[in-house]
Amino acid sequence: MSERLVVIGGDAAGMSAASQARRLKSPQELEIVAFERGNFTSFSACGIPYWVGGDVAERDDLIARTPEEHRERSIDLRMRTEVVEIDARERRVRARDLASGAEEWTAYDKLVIATGARPLRPDLPGIDAPGVHGVQTLDDGQALLDTLTGTPGRRAVVIGAGYIGVEMAEALIGRGYEVTVVNRGKEPMSTLDPDMGRLVREAMTGMGITMVNDAEVTKILTADDGRARAVATEDREFPADVVVLGIGVRPETALARAAGLPLGEHGGLLTDLAMRVRGPVADGAIWAGGDCVEVLDLVSGRERHIALGTHANKHGQIIGSNVGGGYATFPGVVGTAVSKVCDLEIARTGLREKDARAAGLQYAAVTIESTSRAGYYPGAALMTVKMLAERRTGRLLGVQIVGREGAAKRVDVAAVALTARMTVEQMTALDLGYAPPFSPVWDPVLVAARKAVSAVRAGGA
Amino acid sequence: MSERLVVIGGDAAGMSAASQARRLKSPQELEIVAFERGNFTSFSACGIPYWVGGDVAERDDLIARTPEEHRERSIDLRMRTEVVEIDARERRVRARDLASGAEEWTAYDKLVIATGARPLRPDLPGIDAPGVHGVQTLDDGQALLDTLTGTPGRRAVVIGAGYIGVEMAEALIGRGYEVTVVNRGKEPMSTLDPDMGRLVREAMTGMGITMVNDAEVTKILTADDGRARAVATEDREFPADVVVLGIGVRPETALARAAGLPLGEHGGLLTDLAMRVRGPVADGAIWAGGDCVEVLDLVSGRERHIALGTHANKHGQIIGSNVGGGYATFPGVVGTAVSKVCDLEIARTGLREKDARAAGLQYAAVTIESTSRAGYYPGAALMTVKMLAERRTGRLLGVQIVGREGAAKRVDVAAVALTARMTVEQMTALDLGYAPPFSPVWDPVLVAARKAVSAVRAGGA
Repeated sequence: MSERLVVIGGDAAGMSAASQARRLKSPQELEIVAFERGNFTSFSACGIPYWVGGDVAERDDLIARTPEEHRERSIDLRMRTEVVEIDARERRVRARDLASGAEEWTAYDKLVIATGARPLRPDLPGIDAPGVHGVQTLDDGQALLDTLTGTPGRRAVVIGAGYIGVEMAEALIGRGYEVTVVNRGKEPMSTLDPDMGRLVREAMTGMGITMVNDAEVTKILTADDGRARAVATEDREFPADVVVLGIGVRPETALARAAGLPLGEHGGLLTDLAMRVRGPVADGAIWAGGDCVEVLDLVSGRERHIALGTHANKHGQIIGSNVGGGYATFPGVVGTAVSKVCDLEIARTGLREKDARAAGLQYAAVTIESTSRAGYYPGAALMTVKMLAERRTGRLLGVQIVGREGAAKRVDVAAVALTARMTVEQMTALDLGYAPPFSPVWDPVLVAARKAVSAVRAGGA
Repeated sequence: MSERLVVIGGDAAGMSAASQARRLKSPQELEIVAFERGNFTSFSACGIPYWVGGDVAERDDLIARTPEEHRERSIDLRMRTEVVEIDARERRVRARDLASGAEEWTAYDKLVIATGARPLRPDLPGIDAPGVHGVQTLDDGQALLDTLTGTPGRRAVVIGAGYIGVEMAEALIGRGYEVTVVNRGKEPMSTLDPDMGRLVREAMTGMGITMVNDAEVTKILTADDGRARAVATEDREFPADVVVLGIGVRPETALARAAGLPLGEHGGLLTDLAMRVRGPVADGAIWAGGDCVEVLDLVSGRERHIALGTHANKHGQIIGSNVGGGYATFPGVVGTAVSKVCDLEIARTGLREKDARAAGLQYAAVTIESTSRAGYYPGAALMTVKMLAERRTGRLLGVQIVGREGAAKRVDVAAVALTARMTVEQMTALDLGYAPPFSPVWDPVLVAARKAVSAVRAGGA
């Protein structure tokens, strides 16, 4: 007898799940219906800054798979159709065709919730004025590009200095804008400790970006034609021909909440290791993945919300295997993230100092400077590596790296070491690739590990 | 009471050991005497190809620490002085001043053997002719550079297609030479499986390098003036204005052998985890490290000989800690190595197919192609990743990567995973850094791991 799988959300997690389930089950065995309220499927939201900046030529370059390609694989994909209710007791969803407004119930045997995240949009005067742009969807990106081409002025203000904020700063620099970044925190990149964020601020300032820290935006000022003309903080005004919001996202879980499904302290859905939604309401028939779920942080043992395409793809793969009759699990994350602003590379994994404190861990923190290649080799670039290790046990807790070429992906070594729960002493013996064009004889991560060993032994902070 | 530490060999392992011991013990506590038969200390042999190629301007750029700098740190360093005998029973060494020929015994409480490796130099007619060069020491590098500047011809033949051979091919291309590489094996880079070596060969051919495989050199032909003029194999002659030997090295352990110290099947000294030479002759008073020792391969459980500066530095650090009264261990290697030929990056870690077979392991091998960045991001470069996993258990056994920018150092992820004895299934969940400028949404190593999981499950080879 044929089962029906319903998928809510046509992006990375949802469509990966649908595709993987289809690989495992024929259309005769499993009917797959997917609802997407937007105009696109399976696109790279992480790529939008590079499209806006001009590094990626075409919007369609960011689309991994079109609706037609999904349909060719026997996935009944309904675009511009929004699920407005999940009825978990009756195992059905109510969906609305956004063009006609018509609504219809669809029954499911298995349900995948992949509703993603919504960008934070502070409730400020002027926030909805023309010229103020989010960068969450391809439509957002197109609207921003339209504003950039249609506006003669060259002053841009970015609100927020996290990943999206700094990547958009790079994009706007690439488009020839004078860029001001207005940031609530003491330093940009609050995903780093402030001492490492300071390095990012200094580099951004060196690129000609105006960094305004410790500043709360109070309103968007508009001109007579209603368009945004400036961003105001409590004590200053920053003229703006275009305003970009890069404040971060929250799990899009209103549907799930209304259905009585369990949400965590960050507002994300809670699942088990197989990405199946916990609790009696879901009744074992609902899975969730991507930006709408919370994930286990393997270092702190706490749940976190991390909106990142690579996790969404993994979740989708795992959900698809499970709903397709296999078995796969997502053990959790260690919190790895990499980014760049022009030629500055930024990476982190594991816990920051404040995370370690919040988790009640005693730690030693060390910082070293080294180079990406042998010091004598052309192009050797400085990088700063900060490492946290647990006192007494010496267990690695986290690594942050700020540098130029070759800095960011070095964090992967620490990500694997965290997953394996290595000590910093074990790390000092790691057999990492060495040749003068690729690394000093002691890789920067190992230099940091050696210093961390000393700090742990000395018992110092 | 003051002890005396004697060090034989003034390069990476020996001088790292001396320096680390000096950090831990004052000159009043520990006298340190080091003998070096050559003209230099603490230089980067791995950097010689880049100096010859012109990427590194000066010979002295490759010297990490001069004899004077060592002496300033109260290390009694005797240059151009060769140890010619170790008398382990009496705990003394006999050293010869190479200028005067005078010999003298020096007693030790603790001895470090860091005699390095010697390049293979096949016993062929013409091998000692002017114009034939090894590249082991700075003097070798200078002699080669002198030949290059003093010789009008522009045809170079490199004998050997391992790391040294391919790096010297790049160096000579950089100097404007027509380069022919004569290789005994079926493909270059025998540290890779032949299917991956083929990719290296194709890329080198594409760079204009003439690759001659399956060819045994029989002699070096000389001109009337006695200089090398061609390299001959059984059936061909390759005209050469300069000949470079890049055949590999063997542990330099003649002294140790004569002293009755234990050598392994590769001719290297055998030590325990603390780098202390095993057995009753050494009597706990002798340590050894660097290119003259064999190390434990953590994947196969067998001893290997790997001449690599990064290991030598680690050994020295560990020996120095131990002779200085601390305690440190070198657990072993997983066999990581990275290299490049022009813009082609080459990396390996763990076991090749033939190593896995030799170790009696049943394995699955998979190969995938992916890119260094998101496919739509500028500069995304193809790379090929080969992965071996043990059948049934799924334990990672090895990874080989050939590609362009961003390929080589990705092997570090596998090196850490091997050290932690991860399965390929565990690897698929690794939280590696993702952003479009740095990686596709599935990092190439994870794509390979996913395919390896399928192969292990299918039970296929």
